[in-house]
Amino acid sequence: MAATPKVVDRLIQALSRLPGIGPKTASRLTYYLLRSGQKETMVLASALAELHQSTVFCSVCCNISDTDPCALCSDESRDRAMICVVEDALDVLAIEKTGRYRGLYHVLHGHISPMDRIGPDELRIGELVKRLEDDAFRELILATNPTLEGDATAIYLARLVARAGLMLTRLALGLPRGGDLEYADRVTLGEALAGRRPM
Amino acid sequence: MAATPKVVDRLIQALSRLPGIGPKTASRLTYYLLRSGQKETMVLASALAELHQSTVFCSVCCNISDTDPCALCSDESRDRAMICVVEDALDVLAIEKTGRYRGLYHVLHGHISPMDRIGPDELRIGELVKRLEDDAFRELILATNPTLEGDATAIYLARLVARAGLMLTRLALGLPRGGDLEYADRVTLGEALAGRRPM
Repeated sequence: MAATPKVVDRLIQALSRLPGIGPKTASRLTYYLLRSGQKETMVLASALAELHQSTVFCSVCCNISDTDPCALCSDESRDRAMICVVEDALDVLAIEKTGRYRGLYHVLHGHISPMDRIGPDELRIGELVKRLEDDAFRELILATNPTLEGDATAIYLARLVARAGLMLTRLALGLPRGGDLEYADRVTLGEALAGRRPM
Repeated sequence: MAATPKVVDRLIQALSRLPGIGPKTASRLTYYLLRSGQKETMVLASALAELHQSTVFCSVCCNISDTDPCALCSDESRDRAMICVVEDALDVLAIEKTGRYRGLYHVLHGHISPMDRIGPDELRIGELVKRLEDDAFRELILATNPTLEGDATAIYLARLVARAGLMLTRLALGLPRGGDLEYADRVTLGEALAGRRPM
């Protein structure tokens, strides 16, 4: 077999380690970068090099940020009586994009998963408990994913933080907007039925 | 909307420019790297930074290499009467993996595509013509892709380099090994029929 240049192999291997990128995609990306020239490659290399240098975890909500506290936690116009607990930083972005939530967030950075040996101690749960002690929240939205692990995490948290005066809520389950009843999976359709609302 | 850290946005944008990676995948990869720590990110950053520094185009076959001429062109054990013309460096690797070709290569770095304003001058065709003048090849395999553009490139090259004593060949078309006749597309099945061989 032909000897691939060592640096080419090294980049293919580094890219293959990323989630959802197999060896074939990694090769294709590498050879794309080889073709597209040094400038584009260096833009990517320097963006990567600076990623961790210029980001911190917000000491309040644990979200990834370039300031501490983050822009959301420092925003005085937000509703400080509501807190939305999510698994990942990307979930914050997704909820912000809806434009239908004006409260605060807390990022767990994962979910409880005994299979992967991720217990409550691996998540940012201690920080959440402390926030709930210090501040007077009216509602806590358990916006973990609608998965086995997300549900388990929500149930664990609900038991941990339950107290008088704090309303605990969970995101609604049902048919996705624009979805087709015929193509909905059995479980989703079941949830949509169980959660039906008066017109 | 929440202000994403600037470096995070910059990496998402840089990754989105890669082929097959949309903004969603780019976000997911970026947040994966944020979670996985600085070490993994720096491995990728330095692999990218060194990619162009440590690679050259072989001055003989135009393949990407860390030496000039490349390992394949310098390999005295290879059949110097055969030359296989391919579109991309990855095609060389694919053919080498078959273990059924022991000749030399020539990498065009693309195909003729008037739609994308890629004419013969954008490809490494001049280098190929010069090689054919200087060396005595017996067979030239036009191993461009079995696509409209690949065919056009092969036809263009065939006209350009045709001369007595040089056999021009093209890769066989037909059913993929392990494929199912029932699921083959109409064109492929047609090619398989047209190219049928006596048992």
